[in-house]
Amino acid sequence: MTSKEFQATARKFAVEEIIPVAAQYDKTGEYPLPLIKRAWELGLMNSHIPESCGGLGLGSFEACLITEELAYGCTGVQTAIEANSLGQMPVIIAGNEHQQKKYLGRMTEEPMMCAYCVTEPGAGSDVAGIKTKAEKKGDEYVINGQKMWITNGGKANWYFLLARTNPDPKAPASKAFTGFIVEADSPGIQIGRKEINMGQRCSDTRGIVFEDVRVPKENVLIAEGAGFKIAMGAFDKTRPPVAAGAVGLAKRALDEATRYALERKTFGKPIVEHQAVSFLLAEMAMKVELARMAYQRAAWEVDAGRRNTYYASIAKAFAGDIANQVATDAVQIFGGNGFNTEYPVEKLMRDAKIFQIYEGTAQIQRMIIAREHVGKFQA
Amino acid sequence: MTSKEFQATARKFAVEEIIPVAAQYDKTGEYPLPLIKRAWELGLMNSHIPESCGGLGLGSFEACLITEELAYGCTGVQTAIEANSLGQMPVIIAGNEHQQKKYLGRMTEEPMMCAYCVTEPGAGSDVAGIKTKAEKKGDEYVINGQKMWITNGGKANWYFLLARTNPDPKAPASKAFTGFIVEADSPGIQIGRKEINMGQRCSDTRGIVFEDVRVPKENVLIAEGAGFKIAMGAFDKTRPPVAAGAVGLAKRALDEATRYALERKTFGKPIVEHQAVSFLLAEMAMKVELARMAYQRAAWEVDAGRRNTYYASIAKAFAGDIANQVATDAVQIFGGNGFNTEYPVEKLMRDAKIFQIYEGTAQIQRMIIAREHVGKFQA
Amino acid sequence: MTSKEFQATARKFAVEEIIPVAAQYDKTGEYPLPLIKRAWELGLMNSHIPESCGGLGLGSFEACLITEELAYGCTGVQTAIEANSLGQMPVIIAGNEHQQKKYLGRMTEEPMMCAYCVTEPGAGSDVAGIKTKAEKKGDEYVINGQKMWITNGGKANWYFLLARTNPDPKAPASKAFTGFIVEADSPGIQIGRKEINMGQRCSDTRGIVFEDVRVPKENVLIAEGAGFKIAMGAFDKTRPPVAAGAVGLAKRALDEATRYALERKTFGKPIVEHQAVSFLLAEMAMKVELARMAYQRAAWEVDAGRRNTYYASIAKAFAGDIANQVATDAVQIFGGNGFNTEYPVEKLMRDAKIFQIYEGTAQIQRMIIAREHVGKFQA
Amino acid sequence: MTSKEFQATARKFAVEEIIPVAAQYDKTGEYPLPLIKRAWELGLMNSHIPESCGGLGLGSFEACLITEELAYGCTGVQTAIEANSLGQMPVIIAGNEHQQKKYLGRMTEEPMMCAYCVTEPGAGSDVAGIKTKAEKKGDEYVINGQKMWITNGGKANWYFLLARTNPDPKAPASKAFTGFIVEADSPGIQIGRKEINMGQRCSDTRGIVFEDVRVPKENVLIAEGAGFKIAMGAFDKTRPPVAAGAVGLAKRALDEATRYALERKTFGKPIVEHQAVSFLLAEMAMKVELARMAYQRAAWEVDAGRRNTYYASIAKAFAGDIANQVATDAVQIFGGNGFNTEYPVEKLMRDAKIFQIYEGTAQIQRMIIAREHVGKFQA
Repeated sequence: MTSKEFQATARKFAVEEIIPVAAQYDKTGEYPLPLIKRAWELGLMNSHIPESCGGLGLGSFEACLITEELAYGCTGVQTAIEANSLGQMPVIIAGNEHQQKKYLGRMTEEPMMCAYCVTEPGAGSDVAGIKTKAEKKGDEYVINGQKMWITNGGKANWYFLLARTNPDPKAPASKAFTGFIVEADSPGIQIGRKEINMGQRCSDTRGIVFEDVRVPKENVLIAEGAGFKIAMGAFDKTRPPVAAGAVGLAKRALDEATRYALERKTFGKPIVEHQAVSFLLAEMAMKVELARMAYQRAAWEVDAGRRNTYYASIAKAFAGDIANQVATDAVQIFGGNGFNTEYPVEKLMRDAKIFQIYEGTAQIQRMIIAREHVGKFQA
Repeated sequence: MTSKEFQATARKFAVEEIIPVAAQYDKTGEYPLPLIKRAWELGLMNSHIPESCGGLGLGSFEACLITEELAYGCTGVQTAIEANSLGQMPVIIAGNEHQQKKYLGRMTEEPMMCAYCVTEPGAGSDVAGIKTKAEKKGDEYVINGQKMWITNGGKANWYFLLARTNPDPKAPASKAFTGFIVEADSPGIQIGRKEINMGQRCSDTRGIVFEDVRVPKENVLIAEGAGFKIAMGAFDKTRPPVAAGAVGLAKRALDEATRYALERKTFGKPIVEHQAVSFLLAEMAMKVELARMAYQRAAWEVDAGRRNTYYASIAKAFAGDIANQVATDAVQIFGGNGFNTEYPVEKLMRDAKIFQIYEGTAQIQRMIIAREHVGKFQA
Repeated sequence: MTSKEFQATARKFAVEEIIPVAAQYDKTGEYPLPLIKRAWELGLMNSHIPESCGGLGLGSFEACLITEELAYGCTGVQTAIEANSLGQMPVIIAGNEHQQKKYLGRMTEEPMMCAYCVTEPGAGSDVAGIKTKAEKKGDEYVINGQKMWITNGGKANWYFLLARTNPDPKAPASKAFTGFIVEADSPGIQIGRKEINMGQRCSDTRGIVFEDVRVPKENVLIAEGAGFKIAMGAFDKTRPPVAAGAVGLAKRALDEATRYALERKTFGKPIVEHQAVSFLLAEMAMKVELARMAYQRAAWEVDAGRRNTYYASIAKAFAGDIANQVATDAVQIFGGNGFNTEYPVEKLMRDAKIFQIYEGTAQIQRMIIAREHVGKFQA
Repeated sequence: MTSKEFQATARKFAVEEIIPVAAQYDKTGEYPLPLIKRAWELGLMNSHIPESCGGLGLGSFEACLITEELAYGCTGVQTAIEANSLGQMPVIIAGNEHQQKKYLGRMTEEPMMCAYCVTEPGAGSDVAGIKTKAEKKGDEYVINGQKMWITNGGKANWYFLLARTNPDPKAPASKAFTGFIVEADSPGIQIGRKEINMGQRCSDTRGIVFEDVRVPKENVLIAEGAGFKIAMGAFDKTRPPVAAGAVGLAKRALDEATRYALERKTFGKPIVEHQAVSFLLAEMAMKVELARMAYQRAAWEVDAGRRNTYYASIAKAFAGDIANQVATDAVQIFGGNGFNTEYPVEKLMRDAKIFQIYEGTAQIQRMIIAREHVGKFQA
């Protein structure tokens, strides 16, 4: 399939299969397994897994186009799917052939989830502050610690896990951490209850406790000490699709608001003819277009083999912000109906907020953008 | 009691009795009857009912101080209480002695709700577009039509209802409508199901259908044709407390965020010591203070006997906006925890949106502010 | 030369030749003739004139890259140069071979200016409201009326002029106006005094009165009645470079602010290390990048032969807004020095405002974006 | 005179005497001596000098009302006048009877300026970083150092000067600095050239070099080491009038824009009837009202004898911001005319920026607001 065909398939799936059931999944918080299986069948999952492992080996650009469409349908569903990419990414960028074949390969054989286990209760976006530790004992590492906000936490077949292997608190982050692949059925893993969140409620987010969990040394990515760089490198590749997800949500809010503004009448005419409404729609449309350019640019840089940290953070920061603004504006255009659960836009507003928080908060993105920008003047 | 004492009573009630149960009411959507009864006992309801009818006859300023405190506890509860004031206001400003004694008096004798029945499915904030009609037949009016978004709709003992009495579509709004007091147990009233909204979920909001509902002519406020002016006049007096409610919510979000920022650590220090956080708190605090000045000014104008339409709309517009901004910022400061229902701020963000919509949307307030402002230059 | 080479040439010219003299031209308001001649020699003017007329026939994308660099140097200079493109554009898109050879050709032979004469005192951005009229008399048209805000007004060799040829006030805009090429030395043309503006002070802006000015029918573009469409079509092609100019200014402000923030110390460290400053720089950098993507997209659509009205207005609207925000922020980062004429940023702030006004105000762009966006839902 | 009478006098003076000459003073940069003399005669200067020294002893509230009106006329003129208050304030709050009689008294006898000499080239808003030093030699102090951005620098009869008296760099700011009254004709004072700024161009701002300037110990305020607290205390009392000045400018911009919007027509009707314009005017009016409430509250706290640091910074921060927003919006409403020096609004935009910089930048105000706000939670 070409890019356009993938996009069209995803769009059709979102409109025909996700949207009709999204409100129900939001209400129940049930995991959208049927939709995930269907996405898998359609080739919309695992699109970036290398062809050598049975995947499609699509570029970041194509993957982002698909993500935007899925998010248009429901970002709860899209996040469940996207979390797989985040979990796989360290293996894609840093796994050896054996690791890739084993852990990526199985995901192309049947619908299966994985998860990215980095965040901890005390460390949020401050990755260098994580405390889960892995101690080498013979040919194994023994892992102890607590992870939090793990998307797909209760559904994953395996985890990418970041742990501290150098106990010296003064060791630099770039050397202190190691990345592991951990089978989810390893003894010692306790999965917490599903978190009940404001939005993206069908996505499965949990805390996970690791207590003397043994991982064979073969499951270390690259080598001891390489973990921080791998975890950060994954973000460069997963922030563009997160931004694409935010754009999908914003586009949905814009479309819903536009259709409503054409139908709803006040003061004797459709509200789209009130300039306060049409200018607001113009602002919303402008933001959606700009955010889409931003994620496409960030993805294009990756695909061109260039370091895209700067553009990835711009895309993530801007798309996260405008998704919230546009969804809120859509509720405003719907008026009282916008506040009501019978209409689609209040869900969009609830779903949007997490885009400013996960995979690096809005503040973390600013730190990165500033560092990258200022760095050019210091070189 | 002095103003300060009322305020202190309300604050204590909010902190000790509302906050501990607010999350539960939000979850179940149950009507907070025990809290309403308790507020009634404490003298925090019906504060503006004239002393001649057994009320406290407090000014708008005092009433707003109380409202801010109740909203600090939970705006779902506060809106349920505040809706009473909106329903009573037409009777306070336009009722004759008999009407006041009968309908206001009974509310001082026991906890009892009333409602303001103006909004319709097709007319939102555009009051002049309402279609419910009242036809005079003998000594009665016969009312037919449909109302919507009626707070306390299913709990009210009586309604203030606005209906069109002049069938000529060209009749000016200022003459076409009449205001009625309608007993809630009148035959022909069908109360719809409770609306499930994004926030303020324990507040009772419903559609109501009036089918051949008979109202004695004694229940007309002032006279046929006076209704539009009464309904609008009520807003001048109820927008300041709505603004006060928004301020209470914003203050709560600010306090929660400040306490969290003092405790939560990232990058080795409490996040309040990161300038991005402390500047955000400064912005939030500034907005809360400004919005409080705005509602106090609007209330003070009323109490001084001056037309306060301009200041009431400024207070409503600004407080509604900043409540949303501050609640959203509070979620951001909480990070992942902010998105989670175990923490108090996601509820604040969901609750806040309605303040930009009801009792005149953000757009309607701008229309009013512009009209009042520009009018000074045209006089 | 390749795109990159044109860009590099323009950048070098801006840094080495424009920046050193920009403050002086701002102070005196003198027309930057030496710079214009130099730009012409370097091949940075007339880049989009077809090769058949002796031009370079560059695409919109390349032209925009050049414009950004010139604007980085001084937008007063850049606007003087850019105004030529606006004046030429109707001839490029609608001129016949003879007209193109005659009027575009001469501009490739020596440095020469032209101007776009559309705006009138009573009609600002409302092009359909223009009143200058042209009456056919024999083989000539006789033109009477008054134009305003004509950039290069006093320096042009010829004008593109839009005039009403259908006296019927009910005639649709799409048929009522005609576009003419008018020699600047035609009898009856009175050029007003140079306007003294807040910024872009070396650019030459004037009112022009046309009194019984005779233009041969050979100078009509396409045909009588085609003028409105030609004038509007020119905007689709000139808004991307105007946006590029705004980006150049914003980039300059960002660079100046970044360098200053690295040098200036308060509270014992360079201000770039205060998070309030670094986050602001991040915001500014993000805006510059997004606005650049926007103009590049709009230019790319033109070059791909697609109608780009939507993207051109997004680019113009967004770049105009952010140029003002970024320049204002740069002044803020400079503190007291920012307010002082010895430092470069106050000029940037003064220069920026016109980008939200000319070639369609910020409001006009919103109207266009809304119309284009909503139109997709009505089709 | 009552408050209202002072306000009316100031308003009349602004409209009848300042506005007609403001553009000319802006153009020439000449010091507005005739206006200052006239303000002095009308009792609009020195209003807060105690009655014991021949002043009016007005409260901060009245002084602010006057300031808003003067600023409505021209903030260049208003700043020249206001700078006197800043210079006098340390003497009012910390001077002994002799100092007050001598230095305040003379200013009530004839029009005379003074200045507040604190800012230094390397220390901007970071007062604790100042380096000018004063060494005690016998009964005198010998002062050496360099001050910058001194309003009324070249016109003052005497200066309040802050200098370091404790050479130990580790000495806390609260003990290291001393405040002096310095006669402007003291030997060793070299006054720099007038700074040419973007706006408020008739105000006299200069650098001053102090070289072995001898000041008798009688001119120390309170005692050695008390200077920092005095300088900071002065800001609590002068920030409300600075905020009032910003409000005056914003009100002027709002009024000019409103009148223009009523007259100017596009698309067949006055632009005030386009909702994009009327909503913008509503926003501008709302901001002016809120900022006025803010400075009045801050002034009222002072007059009530309460520490007003929090409210003073809120007023200064908010009024400084909105003055810039409102002035910029006014230029936008004027369109092309707004950019032109023949119309009054471009001057307002140029004048406004300094309100976010002097007497503590926008950033410094946020620091103070955050510190005051968070402090309540730490107590």
